Amino acid sequence: MRALSRCVTSTVLGLLLFRAAPAAEPFTEAQLDQARAIRERGLADDVAYELLRSLTTEVGPRSAGSPGDARAVSWALAHLRALGFKNVHAESVTVSHWTRGEAHAEITAPWPQTLLPVALGGSGATPPSGVEAEVVPITSLTELAAVPAASVKGRIVFFTQRMQKTHDGAGYGTAVAVRSTGALESSRMGAVAIVIRSIGTDSNRLAHTGGMRIADSVRTIPALALSNPDADLLENELASGQPVRLRLRNTSAWADSARSANVVAEVPGAARVGEVVLLGAHLDSWDLGTGAEDDGAGVATVAAAARLVGEARPGPARTVRVVLYANEEHGGQGSRNYALRHGAELSRHVMAMESDLGAFQVLGVESRVPLDRLPVARAMASLLAPWGAQFLGNEAEGGADVGPLGELGVPLLGVRTDAVPYFDLHHTANDTFDKIDPALLRQNVAAYATLAYLAAQYPGDFGRAPKPKRPR
Amino acid sequence: MRALSRCVTSTVLGLLLFRAAPAAEPFTEAQLDQARAIRERGLADDVAYELLRSLTTEVGPRSAGSPGDARAVSWALAHLRALGFKNVHAESVTVSHWTRGEAHAEITAPWPQTLLPVALGGSGATPPSGVEAEVVPITSLTELAAVPAASVKGRIVFFTQRMQKTHDGAGYGTAVAVRSTGALESSRMGAVAIVIRSIGTDSNRLAHTGGMRIADSVRTIPALALSNPDADLLENELASGQPVRLRLRNTSAWADSARSANVVAEVPGAARVGEVVLLGAHLDSWDLGTGAEDDGAGVATVAAAARLVGEARPGPARTVRVVLYANEEHGGQGSRNYALRHGAELSRHVMAMESDLGAFQVLGVESRVPLDRLPVARAMASLLAPWGAQFLGNEAEGGADVGPLGELGVPLLGVRTDAVPYFDLHHTANDTFDKIDPALLRQNVAAYATLAYLAAQYPGDFGRAPKPKRPR
Repeated sequence: MRALSRCVTSTVLGLLLFRAAPAAEPFTEAQLDQARAIRERGLADDVAYELLRSLTTEVGPRSAGSPGDARAVSWALAHLRALGFKNVHAESVTVSHWTRGEAHAEITAPWPQTLLPVALGGSGATPPSGVEAEVVPITSLTELAAVPAASVKGRIVFFTQRMQKTHDGAGYGTAVAVRSTGALESSRMGAVAIVIRSIGTDSNRLAHTGGMRIADSVRTIPALALSNPDADLLENELASGQPVRLRLRNTSAWADSARSANVVAEVPGAARVGEVVLLGAHLDSWDLGTGAEDDGAGVATVAAAARLVGEARPGPARTVRVVLYANEEHGGQGSRNYALRHGAELSRHVMAMESDLGAFQVLGVESRVPLDRLPVARAMASLLAPWGAQFLGNEAEGGADVGPLGELGVPLLGVRTDAVPYFDLHHTANDTFDKIDPALLRQNVAAYATLAYLAAQYPGDFGRAPKPKRPR
Repeated sequence: MRALSRCVTSTVLGLLLFRAAPAAEPFTEAQLDQARAIRERGLADDVAYELLRSLTTEVGPRSAGSPGDARAVSWALAHLRALGFKNVHAESVTVSHWTRGEAHAEITAPWPQTLLPVALGGSGATPPSGVEAEVVPITSLTELAAVPAASVKGRIVFFTQRMQKTHDGAGYGTAVAVRSTGALESSRMGAVAIVIRSIGTDSNRLAHTGGMRIADSVRTIPALALSNPDADLLENELASGQPVRLRLRNTSAWADSARSANVVAEVPGAARVGEVVLLGAHLDSWDLGTGAEDDGAGVATVAAAARLVGEARPGPARTVRVVLYANEEHGGQGSRNYALRHGAELSRHVMAMESDLGAFQVLGVESRVPLDRLPVARAMASLLAPWGAQFLGNEAEGGADVGPLGELGVPLLGVRTDAVPYFDLHHTANDTFDKIDPALLRQNVAAYATLAYLAAQYPGDFGRAPKPKRPR
């Protein structure tokens, strides 16, 4: 007992000593100082702002397959070269291609009113004369699944669910299913069209578009989004208890697949050139606005951040690669294409980061790294602590473009920005350059540059990302 | 000298005594208590909110001469009767009638971009194929007058002036001249069309319409408003130094004059029934939104306020008359019609008030009364002091509807509300019911009810309004 007791005591002491002693620091003080210097240069750097002014002015909307998309690829190649990147090239991607046309909606009974809808990306067209039917309000997909098909058949389903404002964007994740599959599920039940309360949190009369799923076996019905004010009006008419009828007209159409490209540019590493720190954003945008926050801000942020890393002395040990993905919004072909084309080198992708939540206040950093590398991620995140940014844990999922790399084992870092203002603008005509706050854009550049530099200099190995706890 | 000296001394003493002694109070304590009780009932009264929900849902847009305008007249007659008003009737008014059609604008060079314009009320149409020309940026009417006509001839003038946010709405008064006469003056110089940066202070992609002057002797050219984000984009293209070209298409048209009506309703006075306290608002709205703040809020406010006065015991000594004017927005015929039709009784209009700046925070009260009645106006305003509302002086001008009565000698009271949020919405598609803050609407009802009750009870005579210091 005593011997055992002594043994326990010394083990406890050992654990205490282990906890009390400083862990081996992942970075040298010199590396941290260099990263802090990059951070401060980022906070004074307007390269991203001027890039974004150029992209939104000279290219503007750039939905996959459109003339703007092709111009965006040319724009990116030219500007990344002008910024001094190496190995700047386009990697051809075949993208799905849908064209918007015109959308009209009016309430015809009980009280005529004109609404200002937008078609969801992928929506079917109405007949040229439109479609008119009674409206059936349905809260959610769950409620839809519970009602008899006869209550929906021949009618227009109105999904009334309201997206909640949340700083972490969780409200979007909860709400978006209606946009993604509401038309498909309603069509299966015989609905002639759907309208949805926009997946968005503002009160502007500008509806939010976004992608929706289609299936060969199910008729693609017209699917229009209503702004929150228009959805309120429709609900106020429904509150009368009288039958409410809508007339919709929509001319959108699917076109043949088109050519686009992922645009790639590098700051070659000085020592470990084959190891890649990837900074991703998507080059395409929806067509309603000029894609300033979504994802022009991401494009500008990662380009300006990688440029800052390239200008640091000493330069990065690993290669910092900027990837501007094709068609994130409406097909995800750029992300899949990259993962396939670069499959052989993914084991040497040591870290991937993505900017696709707008250039708003940086709230924190999250990671997906092996548990024994968490101190490294924490050390990296601590450089953003002066702004109040927190380390938010190891459940980073990446965005739509780098998330799949995470599932293939590439470690992820995520910079979490305030999602509240983002989802006021997201996928609307309001996503324009005037919404960019130059100071917050600089903060984002500083964050990505600081983290990318440290990822490129980390002398150890980040290992492979653990599988996420919840499936994507 | 001594006698004189004594005389002067006693005069000074007399003046001091006059100043020190309480002036004769314009209202009894009982009257003030009754007014305070009305004020508190107003702060708990949702009649206005439900009226406004009904107007925006069941009628919606109601520009002069439109089907919505006719429905609004019927709606007002029915609802004012249902609220218990007496002598509810329509007074026929011939109104000018312009129809919007569709407006399109795109930048064709140097970088193609689609804009989201709206036609100004009164705009001319383009040829069906549109009009394309180089853009000439002009800051203001002053600058236009200074440039050679040759620099404008055959071109599209872009008025770049930006409206300032001000709590008193002064920014609107400064900015609006460009909207009113920019097209007329540009047409005189040979311009083929104009676009203006919206007279509005928001950053939404929703342009602000509004009336513009036309003249028989001058060609009515197309005149479109651009949202602030679109005006920014156009300026960013101009900043390239390259020629910037716009293609415009607009199908609006003037129609024959139409019939509308002022709608009048009364709470008859108990003692001085022929003396009128007038509460005005305008029943028409622009066509882009549902006219919730402009001027549905005014309609609801004055109706609910007059109803509260009618329910007070004792009831009003004078008659409180609600006048809902026709076509304030685009002709002013309702205001002129009322002044002419009621010319013989204007000498017995003891006070006129108008609500047409939205139902926002009440900042103060202003008057236009004979100087010796200022203490009465101050006493009335003091009942709103608990909210922080100030007495703002004797230079009230009324709004567009009761202002002309002021010029004819009718004393005016004005409730000044915060103009900052108002001019974010004003004349846009965003002017919808969701923008109404129920608490602020109640505050407005309370303000108008309190002031109207005291005006109806004031035992003295308000006299005739002095001429304004500056011409309207």
